[in-house]
Amino acid sequence: MNGAESLIRSLVNAGVNICFANPGTSEMHLVQAIDAVPEMRAVLCLFEGVCTGAADGYGRMQGVPATTLLHLGPGLGNGIANLHNARRAATPIINLIGNHALYHVKYDAPLTSDIDTLAKNVSSWIRSDSTARSLAADGMAALQAANTLKPGSLGQISTLIVPSDACWGEAEGPVGTLDVPALVEADDKVITDVAGKIDSNSMILLNNDGLSLPARIAASRIQAETGCRIALTTFPRRVDGGPGTPVFERLPYFPEHVMATLKNINTLVLAGSDAPVSFFAYPDYPSELVPDSCEAIVLADGNENVTLALQSVAESINAPESGYPVFDKRIPEVPAGKLSVATAATLLAGLLPENSIVCGDSGGGGAFFVPAQETTPHTWLNLTGGSIGQGGPVSVGAAIARPESRVLALLGDGAAMYTNQAFWTQAREGLDVTTVIYSNHRYGILETEYLRLGVNEIGDRAGDLFDLSRPFIDFVSLAGSMGVPGRVAKTCEEFSAALELSFSQPGPFVIEARV
Amino acid sequence: MNGAESLIRSLVNAGVNICFANPGTSEMHLVQAIDAVPEMRAVLCLFEGVCTGAADGYGRMQGVPATTLLHLGPGLGNGIANLHNARRAATPIINLIGNHALYHVKYDAPLTSDIDTLAKNVSSWIRSDSTARSLAADGMAALQAANTLKPGSLGQISTLIVPSDACWGEAEGPVGTLDVPALVEADDKVITDVAGKIDSNSMILLNNDGLSLPARIAASRIQAETGCRIALTTFPRRVDGGPGTPVFERLPYFPEHVMATLKNINTLVLAGSDAPVSFFAYPDYPSELVPDSCEAIVLADGNENVTLALQSVAESINAPESGYPVFDKRIPEVPAGKLSVATAATLLAGLLPENSIVCGDSGGGGAFFVPAQETTPHTWLNLTGGSIGQGGPVSVGAAIARPESRVLALLGDGAAMYTNQAFWTQAREGLDVTTVIYSNHRYGILETEYLRLGVNEIGDRAGDLFDLSRPFIDFVSLAGSMGVPGRVAKTCEEFSAALELSFSQPGPFVIEARV
Repeated sequence: MNGAESLIRSLVNAGVNICFANPGTSEMHLVQAIDAVPEMRAVLCLFEGVCTGAADGYGRMQGVPATTLLHLGPGLGNGIANLHNARRAATPIINLIGNHALYHVKYDAPLTSDIDTLAKNVSSWIRSDSTARSLAADGMAALQAANTLKPGSLGQISTLIVPSDACWGEAEGPVGTLDVPALVEADDKVITDVAGKIDSNSMILLNNDGLSLPARIAASRIQAETGCRIALTTFPRRVDGGPGTPVFERLPYFPEHVMATLKNINTLVLAGSDAPVSFFAYPDYPSELVPDSCEAIVLADGNENVTLALQSVAESINAPESGYPVFDKRIPEVPAGKLSVATAATLLAGLLPENSIVCGDSGGGGAFFVPAQETTPHTWLNLTGGSIGQGGPVSVGAAIARPESRVLALLGDGAAMYTNQAFWTQAREGLDVTTVIYSNHRYGILETEYLRLGVNEIGDRAGDLFDLSRPFIDFVSLAGSMGVPGRVAKTCEEFSAALELSFSQPGPFVIEARV
Repeated sequence: MNGAESLIRSLVNAGVNICFANPGTSEMHLVQAIDAVPEMRAVLCLFEGVCTGAADGYGRMQGVPATTLLHLGPGLGNGIANLHNARRAATPIINLIGNHALYHVKYDAPLTSDIDTLAKNVSSWIRSDSTARSLAADGMAALQAANTLKPGSLGQISTLIVPSDACWGEAEGPVGTLDVPALVEADDKVITDVAGKIDSNSMILLNNDGLSLPARIAASRIQAETGCRIALTTFPRRVDGGPGTPVFERLPYFPEHVMATLKNINTLVLAGSDAPVSFFAYPDYPSELVPDSCEAIVLADGNENVTLALQSVAESINAPESGYPVFDKRIPEVPAGKLSVATAATLLAGLLPENSIVCGDSGGGGAFFVPAQETTPHTWLNLTGGSIGQGGPVSVGAAIARPESRVLALLGDGAAMYTNQAFWTQAREGLDVTTVIYSNHRYGILETEYLRLGVNEIGDRAGDLFDLSRPFIDFVSLAGSMGVPGRVAKTCEEFSAALELSFSQPGPFVIEARV
């Protein structure tokens, strides 16, 4: 057995059995190994950003890492933007990046580059000097690192840069998994401190494993006892929501709105989250958004368990087991006429199939986040790292992780263009993904941000850089060229009909929502 | 005047007046500056890999760097693959990468990453700590570095990571250019050494500035006197070719073919090129392909002038001024019937408009390289770094550099998918680009490489990873969705008619060549 096969067999034995792949010549022995090990499902993507985004979607849903298979430095380069998002989502991923044979690297052949350097920003674990005999064990070390759970870091990204001589050389065979360090209980002193301070002028800010339903229930019990507020971070990685789940706020995006939200908060309990900072810097706003008068307390840190810490606080203040506010089920009024971001959100919330997974990449999609809590149980996977082009790829991975669910990708038109190759994999794999593209023919967020500079009018040449209308992008043709059928919707009625059509049939569908 | 405007004004004063842009919030002050300085032409691309590839095409044609305008680390990440190619093409480029305000970086907001690290592989010059008062001067230092000419490095990539507070802060105004170090004459001893050794068992291997027409003419004069062979490197950055230009060989791709080519060579003169190494490592072939019995001599190094060195060798052996072999003009026989890579090459060569620029990204395109030398004066811009998805973006930049020329992008179907957003910019800017997609519905090169592993049959699951037929990609619809008209060609007659239609009208066009 060669090194490649020892690696792939070790991974599938450990339950890692999905590979989002765009291989090249240096990965041919890994392809041969995948061919020999049918337990490893390989999913071809026609651009590496689709591979890495799909691995993010899969990992967020499954809690088990997918692998990616990418071609040297440039292949990893193409995947970096969505690895950046995945890192911010604390998603476990194992990147398998093919490299030249180690002895060949020094000759600086055209595709040579320093892959370690490229991997650094997006990887918590990197190894690039494997031999055929170490490769399987290195894969298990990559898995151990990817699964090492920490608050603020549910999982991590491991990058195993695989020399081709390690793939083709003789190995001893598959090896077993390594232990993952367990989470521990948070410091009693912190629990006591939070329990003593939390009151109606406090806020619990949830992210990462603080977003889990048990964690949110614990936070809501604390709320029921103390009257504190509960907020999700601005860009939560995953929210399992819907009627009957605890009510929350969501921290806004712009710094002045965050500051207004936190104005009267005296104690901010960071439950899996960091202290809020401005997404971008602005000349007129500070970077740190927690008021001076507010104490921010990290509830659990390092390898301490956030959920358990919230439960400990609830117990120590004798919080009630129930009676906290939950989202009530509500049948939204069906809007009519011209489609807008707001009416599309209402219609989507009303028609959402139960247990759908919603992958959001756009402001338009965000408008749907709150209404959906009141209609149907669903899972929300948000853009986390601010790098657009995530929603389509994440929908691919989510659909492969949960074939029984309908997956929605809610994309801006600008974002949809970045990784439009996701349509092809959706069609190839017959994935039940409904993509809604909010087509307003511009980079709307940039118009907003530009006006925030204090410029009252957008000049023609600046406006050109935000304009997607020239030429017009026909998303139904674009998706159709890759085998995904679709419709344009300009009115509420057309949008509802298109959603109903998509939800009534298997496979992918695209709706170009003219808003 | 703020820092952003001082930078943009300095650049346009220095003749840098094209910006391939995909900006985000942190670049809004640079957009405002571009709006205020109409001499800077901004070209919007809907994916950063199009920006960087376009800058490569522009720089190769113009010899002057274009700028890119990209959004933080993920924006640069999306552009890395084509910067890798541009680096291998020794193309001068100035990347302007927006970053957070310097004081904001430490807060690790979601879009924060270590951009320096990401830029390292693809940049010969990086600066990331500019202030408003230094920004214009830093831009001129970036230009100086990009224009610093060396053999093997006609130009370099400079990456100016621009903190947003350096953009919005008050600056003193534009500054002037810095001197670029001149090339110097090569060492007399090396000239004498080469002149003494070069004979009919020698080869001159040309790359980078050794590819210029004056360099090739000097090499051919040496050939006329000595009977030596002249070869271009496997992936030449730019070849101005056609009837009447000196005859050359081109080094093949696979190591065994390179070894066969070099078998009887005793002296290999490296004129702007490196000693040939295998593109990939293979278990059965060496990395270094120059035979032990052959002496490889670097003709000019560092900042020595390759063209001048070749001319000095020619003078010192009293080589004749003329009489060397040139490509003769030849009217190719017009093939008929089913289209193939070979017949498409002949038809393209026959119909090529004078002074076209051909951007090649595929094996199918490569077949056209030799026939075209015998038909029409043209410029060839080859894939250099092995990272596919280059040809479409390069065609955008070439067309903007040479609006009077027809530009051809010859792409494999796999490569075309990587950066299909190039179509949109072609349509938006009305560029005279004819894209030919050799659609064989597979990653053909990978099938070839896989069989070279010694596997006699490609298993179903491996074959799936090379297969682009499921679903079928309709490239005419894909390009059409972004405003580029096109046709499918299955026969020689259809292919000729489609080429003639495209060449008869302005603007972009796509031909899906079913080969």
